[in-house]
Amino acid sequence: MIIIGEKINGSIPSMAKAIAEKNEEHIKNIAVAQANAGATFIDVCASVEPDKEVATLKWLIDLVQSVTDVPIAVDSPDPKVIAEALPFCKKPGLVNSISGDKVAGTDKDKIDFLLPIIADTKWEVIALLNGGTGIPKSAEDRLKVFDLLMAKAKEYKIAPSRFHIDPIIEALATIDEGGIGMVVEVMQEIKRREPTIHITGAVSNISFNLPGRKLVNQAFAVLAMNAGLDSAIFDPLNKDLLGMIYATEALLGNDEYCMEYIQGFRQGLYPAAPPAKK
Amino acid sequence: MIIIGEKINGSIPSMAKAIAEKNEEHIKNIAVAQANAGATFIDVCASVEPDKEVATLKWLIDLVQSVTDVPIAVDSPDPKVIAEALPFCKKPGLVNSISGDKVAGTDKDKIDFLLPIIADTKWEVIALLNGGTGIPKSAEDRLKVFDLLMAKAKEYKIAPSRFHIDPIIEALATIDEGGIGMVVEVMQEIKRREPTIHITGAVSNISFNLPGRKLVNQAFAVLAMNAGLDSAIFDPLNKDLLGMIYATEALLGNDEYCMEYIQGFRQGLYPAAPPAKK
Repeated sequence: MIIIGEKINGSIPSMAKAIAEKNEEHIKNIAVAQANAGATFIDVCASVEPDKEVATLKWLIDLVQSVTDVPIAVDSPDPKVIAEALPFCKKPGLVNSISGDKVAGTDKDKIDFLLPIIADTKWEVIALLNGGTGIPKSAEDRLKVFDLLMAKAKEYKIAPSRFHIDPIIEALATIDEGGIGMVVEVMQEIKRREPTIHITGAVSNISFNLPGRKLVNQAFAVLAMNAGLDSAIFDPLNKDLLGMIYATEALLGNDEYCMEYIQGFRQGLYPAAPPAKK
Repeated sequence: MIIIGEKINGSIPSMAKAIAEKNEEHIKNIAVAQANAGATFIDVCASVEPDKEVATLKWLIDLVQSVTDVPIAVDSPDPKVIAEALPFCKKPGLVNSISGDKVAGTDKDKIDFLLPIIADTKWEVIALLNGGTGIPKSAEDRLKVFDLLMAKAKEYKIAPSRFHIDPIIEALATIDEGGIGMVVEVMQEIKRREPTIHITGAVSNISFNLPGRKLVNQAFAVLAMNAGLDSAIFDPLNKDLLGMIYATEALLGNDEYCMEYIQGFRQGLYPAAPPAKK
């Protein structure tokens, strides 16, 4: 499982406070904690006023790189900011994210703006299946965006394995019928069309507006992994969710003799649970 | 989800003590608690010396029936004991269980011994896919036992919907490769062949000999439900597992607008979890 550690994000109140107060120790500690919990990428999102965003990203990226070698996921709603921030990174990481949305002040969408920039690099990229006219409602329409995206990938000679496709995880509470059937279908079909591609998503979106969100997030993570999700942005310090992910890898046959699951348990990555009764 | 409450079982040390001490209050309390947590059946297993088993079962069944109308799952390794205990029940419940194992002192297996007894009743039955020569190793061999069982069901005119097929859940730690792929295949194929049938199992078997069993049990329950499991023997007072099951029903589209999930939360059936961060 590719873990994109989500904690260095100015939209989280405690992180906004640390950014505002220039609390370098806090940010470095969070970076190290996520690296120790097995993060594959450390997401860095400033979430400050536009005129401060590039400088804040540089400061945050430098801080993270001063304490860990884990590559950065450069996270901004503005593709121009992403383009400016990529050179701050010592090694290729993950662009978060592209979609069919237009880039303000240009005639390009985020796909055509950012793919040429990373084409001849080793950067990976999160691509949302949003064609630029809002979130497509059907599996068919999301897969059309996917096909378009793969055509662009071919054009720019970017291997599918560098893409993390986000099929767009919506709140279960707002789905009329069929539960997560549609998004599962999208995941399975993408994996069928491009076996080397990664499938990612914001797992916790699923539980928006429901009580006991933790339960719904955990059960969803298991079902999504079963459908092909192999990358996700979440808090790796959430021991329950991390434990569920390791357990699922073992159940799905991706962890011979449960060695990684058992090792994670020994390292204290999950909550210490008593043996189940009977 | 059909919940078979597992707590009144003499193989659980605290229950063995209650049985030995004739602690009627304890047993009645456990029966009521399981009923309140939504048990569809209350399993009753004496697990005492053979010469005391029928009398102990009668005493336990009478106690349960004195406090709840939830039907009984009559649980014994000895089909003769089950046959003797069925008349103690005020209404049809669940026979736990039959298999291809031979019945001592007869030339019959458990299938041929018990199916005629319940043929003209409304009793349901748990059937293990064990053909009488140990646990079949391949999906193909388990499905052969299933086909044989369905032939017998036809012979005795018992509708498939009265069967809870236990595909036999083995410990993940002992599986060489492929994780739970084989048992998932068996579940899916059974549901394909007989859509009205129930699929059941002892969920907690999966985590035998692993640390953090709770995590593995929960993740497995989600994956098994996705494969067709709609019945299970477990402790309904285990709030984490029960919550995971309700969440999964909603995710799989079996709970319109998450109404049952939300109601269970209001009733306090699951752990009170804080909203997930971010």
